[in-house]
Amino acid sequence: MSLLPAPIAELIAALGKLPGIGPRSAERLALHLVQAEPGGVQQLAASILSAREQIRFCGLCGALTDSPTCGTCSDPRREPSLICVVERAVDIISIEKSGTFRGRYHALGGKLSPVNCVEPEHLRIAELQERLATEPIREIVLALGTDVEGDATSYYLAKRLAREGLKITRIAHGLPAGSGLEFADELTLSRALDGRRELL
Amino acid sequence: MSLLPAPIAELIAALGKLPGIGPRSAERLALHLVQAEPGGVQQLAASILSAREQIRFCGLCGALTDSPTCGTCSDPRREPSLICVVERAVDIISIEKSGTFRGRYHALGGKLSPVNCVEPEHLRIAELQERLATEPIREIVLALGTDVEGDATSYYLAKRLAREGLKITRIAHGLPAGSGLEFADELTLSRALDGRRELL
Repeated sequence: MSLLPAPIAELIAALGKLPGIGPRSAERLALHLVQAEPGGVQQLAASILSAREQIRFCGLCGALTDSPTCGTCSDPRREPSLICVVERAVDIISIEKSGTFRGRYHALGGKLSPVNCVEPEHLRIAELQERLATEPIREIVLALGTDVEGDATSYYLAKRLAREGLKITRIAHGLPAGSGLEFADELTLSRALDGRRELL
Repeated sequence: MSLLPAPIAELIAALGKLPGIGPRSAERLALHLVQAEPGGVQQLAASILSAREQIRFCGLCGALTDSPTCGTCSDPRREPSLICVVERAVDIISIEKSGTFRGRYHALGGKLSPVNCVEPEHLRIAELQERLATEPIREIVLALGTDVEGDATSYYLAKRLAREGLKITRIAHGLPAGSGLEFADELTLSRALDGRRELL
């Protein structure tokens, strides 16, 4: 006989696909779930489905949101002349946690990477240019990772977006080299935002 | 504004209730799930629900199973004269993984613990006595934890179940003291099963 009933084996396989969940963690979670209070288990499954269904990308800045326009874009107290450009939607959450940025955001959806066939047209750069034409933006803060691709994307954007009256800055290299925003703590991100320098 | 849209915050709260999932892991998993491929997310939610719905306790031995009688109890090749008594259903999986036990099982559903108000009538001891009356059982192997409550439960069972023609043994103390079965590796469990001694 197989050691585990099929529904448990299937659940272990599904849990094992999640990031940071190894085979032993997946088994421990599955054995917990099949013996847990049914109400809590149904609530977990419902939360997973409803979060996946309701969360979309903000049409303007690309942040994760459950409404057509995200909370930051629709908040009149956010500085409309200051835009922080990040790689991914989750990076916005990291910066918001630092509590020091009062402007708005723009998520590119990635970074330039010729090796992985990510060209400028695959990123939300045209959308950013459209925002530059319609919004009173006076400064763009580039907050991409400090790896080679993040560097290349920052310089590409600085060159492509450069125009009269627009300041393009980059957050200070307070981040450890070769790392992404998701691993930085709030203080490092605050300092990186404070120490930003003009790029060109 | 709150940092996270409500569906994500709810998902993080639900994930954070799982064993071994801290706040940061819960957030990372939630942010992964809301951006993951919808088919995979739906499959995960379905696996959780179907595992919880289909898995029950075997009416005979108390193992986790998706049929009325578990695979071990319904397997004619398993030795019917040898019963291994464990605390919880998941302990059966640990012993099955060691691959050395050819008998059948009986899960008590816990161990005696006066402090937590767990008395003999809260455990599946009457069911075990009924099996002793109806099945050709000649040896009971007690495979409970090696902490104080496991020791007390073992001695209680040995005294209560003792009768002519029934051998009551206990797995060897190959397990680290104060630990439960779930933390033991397969080799330790094999040795513990091999080195079992008669209790009274």
